[in-house]
Amino acid sequence: MVDEVVLDSGREDRIGLPEAVLCAGKSEAQLQRIVQRAPERLLLTRMTAEQHAALSLATTLDYDPLSGTAIRGGCPEPAGEARVAIVTAGTSDLAVAAEAERTLAFHGHSAERFADLGVAGLWRLLDRRDRLADFPVVIAIAGMEGALFSVLGGLVGGVVIAVPTSTGYGVAAGGRAALTSALASCAPGIVAVNIDNGYGAACAALRVLKALAAR
Amino acid sequence: MVDEVVLDSGREDRIGLPEAVLCAGKSEAQLQRIVQRAPERLLLTRMTAEQHAALSLATTLDYDPLSGTAIRGGCPEPAGEARVAIVTAGTSDLAVAAEAERTLAFHGHSAERFADLGVAGLWRLLDRRDRLADFPVVIAIAGMEGALFSVLGGLVGGVVIAVPTSTGYGVAAGGRAALTSALASCAPGIVAVNIDNGYGAACAALRVLKALAAR
Amino acid sequence: MVDEVVLDSGREDRIGLPEAVLCAGKSEAQLQRIVQRAPERLLLTRMTAEQHAALSLATTLDYDPLSGTAIRGGCPEPAGEARVAIVTAGTSDLAVAAEAERTLAFHGHSAERFADLGVAGLWRLLDRRDRLADFPVVIAIAGMEGALFSVLGGLVGGVVIAVPTSTGYGVAAGGRAALTSALASCAPGIVAVNIDNGYGAACAALRVLKALAAR
Amino acid sequence: MVDEVVLDSGREDRIGLPEAVLCAGKSEAQLQRIVQRAPERLLLTRMTAEQHAALSLATTLDYDPLSGTAIRGGCPEPAGEARVAIVTAGTSDLAVAAEAERTLAFHGHSAERFADLGVAGLWRLLDRRDRLADFPVVIAIAGMEGALFSVLGGLVGGVVIAVPTSTGYGVAAGGRAALTSALASCAPGIVAVNIDNGYGAACAALRVLKALAAR
Amino acid sequence: MVDEVVLDSGREDRIGLPEAVLCAGKSEAQLQRIVQRAPERLLLTRMTAEQHAALSLATTLDYDPLSGTAIRGGCPEPAGEARVAIVTAGTSDLAVAAEAERTLAFHGHSAERFADLGVAGLWRLLDRRDRLADFPVVIAIAGMEGALFSVLGGLVGGVVIAVPTSTGYGVAAGGRAALTSALASCAPGIVAVNIDNGYGAACAALRVLKALAAR
Amino acid sequence: MVDEVVLDSGREDRIGLPEAVLCAGKSEAQLQRIVQRAPERLLLTRMTAEQHAALSLATTLDYDPLSGTAIRGGCPEPAGEARVAIVTAGTSDLAVAAEAERTLAFHGHSAERFADLGVAGLWRLLDRRDRLADFPVVIAIAGMEGALFSVLGGLVGGVVIAVPTSTGYGVAAGGRAALTSALASCAPGIVAVNIDNGYGAACAALRVLKALAAR
Amino acid sequence: MVDEVVLDSGREDRIGLPEAVLCAGKSEAQLQRIVQRAPERLLLTRMTAEQHAALSLATTLDYDPLSGTAIRGGCPEPAGEARVAIVTAGTSDLAVAAEAERTLAFHGHSAERFADLGVAGLWRLLDRRDRLADFPVVIAIAGMEGALFSVLGGLVGGVVIAVPTSTGYGVAAGGRAALTSALASCAPGIVAVNIDNGYGAACAALRVLKALAAR
Amino acid sequence: MVDEVVLDSGREDRIGLPEAVLCAGKSEAQLQRIVQRAPERLLLTRMTAEQHAALSLATTLDYDPLSGTAIRGGCPEPAGEARVAIVTAGTSDLAVAAEAERTLAFHGHSAERFADLGVAGLWRLLDRRDRLADFPVVIAIAGMEGALFSVLGGLVGGVVIAVPTSTGYGVAAGGRAALTSALASCAPGIVAVNIDNGYGAACAALRVLKALAAR
Repeated sequence: MVDEVVLDSGREDRIGLPEAVLCAGKSEAQLQRIVQRAPERLLLTRMTAEQHAALSLATTLDYDPLSGTAIRGGCPEPAGEARVAIVTAGTSDLAVAAEAERTLAFHGHSAERFADLGVAGLWRLLDRRDRLADFPVVIAIAGMEGALFSVLGGLVGGVVIAVPTSTGYGVAAGGRAALTSALASCAPGIVAVNIDNGYGAACAALRVLKALAAR
Repeated sequence: MVDEVVLDSGREDRIGLPEAVLCAGKSEAQLQRIVQRAPERLLLTRMTAEQHAALSLATTLDYDPLSGTAIRGGCPEPAGEARVAIVTAGTSDLAVAAEAERTLAFHGHSAERFADLGVAGLWRLLDRRDRLADFPVVIAIAGMEGALFSVLGGLVGGVVIAVPTSTGYGVAAGGRAALTSALASCAPGIVAVNIDNGYGAACAALRVLKALAAR
Repeated sequence: MVDEVVLDSGREDRIGLPEAVLCAGKSEAQLQRIVQRAPERLLLTRMTAEQHAALSLATTLDYDPLSGTAIRGGCPEPAGEARVAIVTAGTSDLAVAAEAERTLAFHGHSAERFADLGVAGLWRLLDRRDRLADFPVVIAIAGMEGALFSVLGGLVGGVVIAVPTSTGYGVAAGGRAALTSALASCAPGIVAVNIDNGYGAACAALRVLKALAAR
Repeated sequence: MVDEVVLDSGREDRIGLPEAVLCAGKSEAQLQRIVQRAPERLLLTRMTAEQHAALSLATTLDYDPLSGTAIRGGCPEPAGEARVAIVTAGTSDLAVAAEAERTLAFHGHSAERFADLGVAGLWRLLDRRDRLADFPVVIAIAGMEGALFSVLGGLVGGVVIAVPTSTGYGVAAGGRAALTSALASCAPGIVAVNIDNGYGAACAALRVLKALAAR
Repeated sequence: MVDEVVLDSGREDRIGLPEAVLCAGKSEAQLQRIVQRAPERLLLTRMTAEQHAALSLATTLDYDPLSGTAIRGGCPEPAGEARVAIVTAGTSDLAVAAEAERTLAFHGHSAERFADLGVAGLWRLLDRRDRLADFPVVIAIAGMEGALFSVLGGLVGGVVIAVPTSTGYGVAAGGRAALTSALASCAPGIVAVNIDNGYGAACAALRVLKALAAR
Repeated sequence: MVDEVVLDSGREDRIGLPEAVLCAGKSEAQLQRIVQRAPERLLLTRMTAEQHAALSLATTLDYDPLSGTAIRGGCPEPAGEARVAIVTAGTSDLAVAAEAERTLAFHGHSAERFADLGVAGLWRLLDRRDRLADFPVVIAIAGMEGALFSVLGGLVGGVVIAVPTSTGYGVAAGGRAALTSALASCAPGIVAVNIDNGYGAACAALRVLKALAAR
Repeated sequence: MVDEVVLDSGREDRIGLPEAVLCAGKSEAQLQRIVQRAPERLLLTRMTAEQHAALSLATTLDYDPLSGTAIRGGCPEPAGEARVAIVTAGTSDLAVAAEAERTLAFHGHSAERFADLGVAGLWRLLDRRDRLADFPVVIAIAGMEGALFSVLGGLVGGVVIAVPTSTGYGVAAGGRAALTSALASCAPGIVAVNIDNGYGAACAALRVLKALAAR
Repeated sequence: MVDEVVLDSGREDRIGLPEAVLCAGKSEAQLQRIVQRAPERLLLTRMTAEQHAALSLATTLDYDPLSGTAIRGGCPEPAGEARVAIVTAGTSDLAVAAEAERTLAFHGHSAERFADLGVAGLWRLLDRRDRLADFPVVIAIAGMEGALFSVLGGLVGGVVIAVPTSTGYGVAAGGRAALTSALASCAPGIVAVNIDNGYGAACAALRVLKALAAR
């Protein structure tokens, strides 16, 4: 077995996003081998504290346990003000928000976070509506019933990227309830990524930001 | 087969609600036999126009095609003002609303309807918040993602009975998305009935009204 | 990230129920921060013994491990006799019952519990039928097939709030079987909350009690 | 294609039940060919009126449209009194009951039917408890939430065969709610067959009756 | 909370099967209390080794770790030869078989076991066909795709009670594949109980045996 | 019932997209009433030929049967070249593509379509890669297994909006297989809308185009 | 829209199988256009009689209504004896068998069919075991519980391709029960295709036959 | 209980594949007993390191922890060059690949592995297309959305056996997304085995190789 690690070296040239390493489901030996062959600047996601500790190069990584992300080679200084808003419904959604934020930072973009905007206390969202309306991209992160997505989508005109989270129990367990709320939303033009996929939401935001820059 | 039709004659005494007849899944011959043996005042639900036309006693029934309900023996004059608000998210939810309204009317209660309060245009709901806050019971009817339930539950303190409807397509088809939104709601104390069950929601409201009257 | 904890300060004014804190899915550091900023009287739900022990303010909390609830600031003396009955089908449902009971107590209401009324031994429920018929609100808690909900709903005229529990295995695992039984019940006017949601059932009961008091 | 129809000629010798013909999913030409090659005495199930009318041998069949069964060669005179009780929850379950009853009759057994014993009006079932306790086999047929199965299983000691039916809407549509109630029942020793499978329930009853006779 | 433990004292009189205690989902304190109030002869199911060790009365129980059953008060001497065959498809099904066997023993019946009769090696089942045909009741236990149920049902005329097990992975995980095979079987008259429910299968067998004895 | 039709008059001001009318689930009478009260320029989606024919104002509508869309008030002349590419996997996806295209046209944007780029004949997609890479937004429409989404997402850097379609049978029926492929994609930053939701995909594209214009 | 029909012209060169046309989900106008541009020899699947009748070139097609297949350009004379066995469990599976058979014939291969080998009458399969063992490829087609797949896989050593069919009702409706049986089979090395996919099974068989020929 | 272990001794003669032992779900004592009675050459799958360590015969086994396979009696020298290609999409799929590879080796066949050919970096697969086209059998292993199966099936003409893996989270968790992609593939003639079933894929490949050898 010669070619076990075949990195997608040309991805950044093709789509503007370099390959990141999803650590979930990989053994420590496999991670070690991948990190050794990977390019200098690298983003790793869903890395547990155990996986991080086991890497021989652990100290060269900027590791954040809440988001489970590790960055090698540092983050570029963000150019200009934040163009992405990250909205969360509750405290349990913050880990996913941090994954999105770190992914944006790795690619040279900052984000502004708006926490605890769950719709049960609607005034919190209404009070921030004007500020949120200024952002070309809003990443909305919510579990349970995910009603935040529709309310937000009816209030602001930016690109709304919904990230359902696996927060909740009973029918909400695993995030399916929030996911179907995002997809079935009565607000026009909301888009969704996989459950808990803060990385994917950030990548989608980066595709929008790239289009903005290209113009 | 002697005793094919055994009506639950004592139900009204036990729980305050007489037995109603669910017409779905019953042949015309079966319906005919049931109606003949049923008591003078009678509520029938989910009756199609074909079922209605086939009954020999059709003319004795007050039949409403939108809700699929038929009433025999008339409705008592509602005592006092409406104590139940019926809120719908969209036009497609009106048939379910009519089923709830007719069920309430059969039991001597009127309802006030608030249509088109879908959360994508949130101001419609906010404008009516004060009026809605006056009702001890609010029946909320919504399909698609059912975000209305949580928003409403965070705005008013009355008993909120959520009726998910089968309005929608894709992941919303059949009403499961709205149902899970009702059950997983982040607003405290929302209760749910089966999909499209306007009759059940009205019965739940009647249980509350009965408690209010008993007091 | 400035505003990580944004409590819904006005919730009690709006809907009569102050915000509670769901501890599931929150880190100990997050809980610590929330508890510090929360108002004096506070209800916390789904708190594990580990989460409780880790709080610096643990000793100021009245913590109940069976229900996983913690109360700060004590409970008001219940006014008058119990207006809510809590009925359980089996021993495994008692933790959910305790969550409901403690939630009621936090808001100044007592409840009377009726344990082990599973329908396989129907006489246990029939023997208590008359007492149960006196309550304006009955919270019914059952797992497995959840047949209790329909039987109870056909026997008493109060508001019946069904709480399916995740008790069971095979097709009953996770509580879906009991949930569908509650929603598809042939007894009119039963309402349901999410699986294992004793807190939500109590909040729904409180909405009814509030309507009773307002009258 | 030589051998398109290969009947299981030895089935009756092996298991005491001759092969029956399930008409659903078969074209009229296929049915015609099967009926021609089949033995003199024959039971056909799930036959639509259209299928029946199209058969050249239609007049030789005793066809019952409610149950969708057709019998060729007549039914033997039942020996002795009925040993199987067939209990239904509601009118919509009668077609399935008729399928079971006709299957029993084809094999020389009569059944006694008990209709409309849904648990919302529990007295109907309790009033018949003593008579039902006399039967070695009880076929229970119910849709919606299927609570009948558990209540019955806790009242009588005979073999209880649950047939969930596809009666219902929303979460009960298709019969899954009733099926999971049968399987997850808190009453010991209830067994289940497929949704709407009156034929299968009768065959299971016949297996029990055969064991009784063999003794 | 006065009446936390309400045993179904009359169950044996009603249906011939005394109440058993399902230990899953019960705390050690709850089990302790139940065992203390329970009658002298008692069957407990799904008891873990930890639960057993924690009971103060552990030594009075005949505990079998494979099946997770405990018996207090001993088993009556079985009268006559075994009337129940227990057939398993693979080694992983033996724990469920043991639960069934112990339940039968508690009620005074022995069973004969036939192991490893999975259909991939069909001769093993065919070789035992004649012996199996002698039993009035056959409990068939299989996971994965559950093909054993249909093959067995086409070979023997006794009452075939299918117990799907949670053996398997991928689409077979949790036992749903085997369950649907049992319910959708092309062999007539097979009945099913819940996944892994060896206790329930034995109770169903006991209902048959009781009918045999009554005759 | 006074206010049955409450249009969201301010939606265009808030989010830049005027309210459209979803005709599915609405009666002809309801549609008639809505169209009468709606503003001059109007987009209607999921309108059947029957619904269209029944409208008294049918001749004032530009109706397209393939997409089921109707436009009143005409479409503005598109400014500049197409900025949105619409890629379809097979012929069955063209109706959804037409819905997206018409929605864009209603808002003054043209699109360029690329048909039949299913991945089984990969060269068709590879041949068009360079042209596709020029678009800031690519709407990808595919049913069956939806592999197109991931392949496309790895080839172009624009915003990729996946629309799963209900094309397919067996496990692909209803579009769930394609939907999960879009959400679980290994290509970074793909976003999804509901099954068959060409309108929603176009609205998401319009949000991106609006951000581009605002810059 | 210039390039609406882009056939995969090189598919036969790449993988040895020319593109076929799936008619389901295509309008008559679309089919007409595709057939006009398609190469001389062509296989169309899932064509309804209505679709066939509407084609202007209908008379040039060899259309088989049972399988829903149409062939243009005739079938080559099969070279040598049949190398593929097609086994069906029941009459309802014959349409899928015919689709497989016609697909093989279009590619110059004949098949031998073995009908009615459902496992409830096991002798039918055992009697044909020796003949079946001679085939390098066996396509097994079964609905309901799909037990045929495992039994067959344990009896013959050829490549067994399982085609679950949507024959059945209740838990078997749609073919999921048979599909999971194929995938979870205890017989080693069985492979599965989508529900009702006779075409796909034939293509898989053709891949094997091609490997045999290449050797 | 006499005959607890009944090995399928004749399986190799019947189908050319000896019985293997699935260790998952078996206790250490059970495994010990099986291994003692099993024939000299033996393949064990899904064996954990704990299970391996507990066996008294552990040292006689060639155990591979990544694949969880153990081999007793060694592997025959592979005859000739590899005829099976094993393609994986990502690092997390390597354990399943190893299970397939070891199963092939046990039966005297080698395989060539092609790692990291996920479609997000399509060039990796295109670069290896010509080599892959030489293999009569290709085992494709992928999790997440499983797009690899369709792309590969459209590029090579060999027998493509898809193994979905449980790699992924959210809607991809458990492998269902990849499984439906394999089954619903738009590429003709792809076949699938159960999720994570590397052993089954190898057995299917062996059936093909046996047919090739027999020719």
